[in-house]
Amino acid sequence: MHPPISDDALDAIFRDARTFRRWQDKPVSPALLMAIYDLMRLGPTSGNCSPARIVFVVSHAAKERLKPHLNQGNVEKTMSAPATAIIGFDLDFAERLPFLFPQQPNAKDAYKDPVLAERVAFRNGSLQGGYFIIAARALGLDCGPMSGFDNAGVDREFFADSRIRSNFLCNIGYGDPVDMGPRNPRLSFEEACRAL
Amino acid sequence: MHPPISDDALDAIFRDARTFRRWQDKPVSPALLMAIYDLMRLGPTSGNCSPARIVFVVSHAAKERLKPHLNQGNVEKTMSAPATAIIGFDLDFAERLPFLFPQQPNAKDAYKDPVLAERVAFRNGSLQGGYFIIAARALGLDCGPMSGFDNAGVDREFFADSRIRSNFLCNIGYGDPVDMGPRNPRLSFEEACRAL
Repeated sequence: MHPPISDDALDAIFRDARTFRRWQDKPVSPALLMAIYDLMRLGPTSGNCSPARIVFVVSHAAKERLKPHLNQGNVEKTMSAPATAIIGFDLDFAERLPFLFPQQPNAKDAYKDPVLAERVAFRNGSLQGGYFIIAARALGLDCGPMSGFDNAGVDREFFADSRIRSNFLCNIGYGDPVDMGPRNPRLSFEEACRAL
Repeated sequence: MHPPISDDALDAIFRDARTFRRWQDKPVSPALLMAIYDLMRLGPTSGNCSPARIVFVVSHAAKERLKPHLNQGNVEKTMSAPATAIIGFDLDFAERLPFLFPQQPNAKDAYKDPVLAERVAFRNGSLQGGYFIIAARALGLDCGPMSGFDNAGVDREFFADSRIRSNFLCNIGYGDPVDMGPRNPRLSFEEACRAL
């Protein structure tokens, strides 16, 4: 449908993009946070189940609520980032399927098994996490995704009274490449893939 | 670091991109399959753990091995697709960490707990699945991702003698939009996000 995107665009979303630990003193506007979501929500999920739920932690007061749940190595970079997204997934995602997938009014019945529902929410919520990172980069932002935090603590603090569970965190802003080393290696095609 | 990518590029990877069920009779070259991986592997994973492993099912013989494990509704579209990627994740991903994350030679010791290792492989392998879909679209291809198949059967057929587990499937090719309806709705920012 579309020709390949430009080399500049490939550089922005993949080739030149890096995980940042240091941030320029430049805020990210609320409109830009909404623009990230407006793109990422278009990415495909299984039966359009769309389980990702996001809290954008921006204010100093909200950052202070997040701080005690971070691994020590993630505190400084998170407190100095213009915004931190808590990417979560909703275990009750199936409740929205009559709206999200109107072709099958009973689609939600397939997820009555809580083990299956958790698996689908975690898989598709993580896929949407990938779309989130790419969407932010596509909009000219830099990302710093992290898994090093107390999920249960974050859930109690930010997702009480719901069945949303935190998946990972992602700092967002305009990165400062000071002290950044070269990119770590990746597995070759031969190591990670086969074509049959 | 980079300005926002062009509207054309945003259209290609998000706004105009759709999940396809029908395919033009036009092959996908081996070089293009390698190009997808060459981009997607650059996306960030936790501690660069890079657990995704991919089998590109291209030949008729390989498609026949996949066919009996597909849900009925996924057979025709998969058999007619130029290629089908089995996106998997390696439960033994930690074995590669001395290469992937040389800054911490003992990083792999953190994943001795098999429950944690599975969680990390599934989360990051799914993130990489998101990068895969965006990379394919960025290269001018269309995708048809699917969860409807027998994971255990695919694992026996394609990942025997390894600890790689299938995650989801993704048909790849040049889509034919015949019979395609409008895109299903998505949750609004207010429904899925909060800014604090």
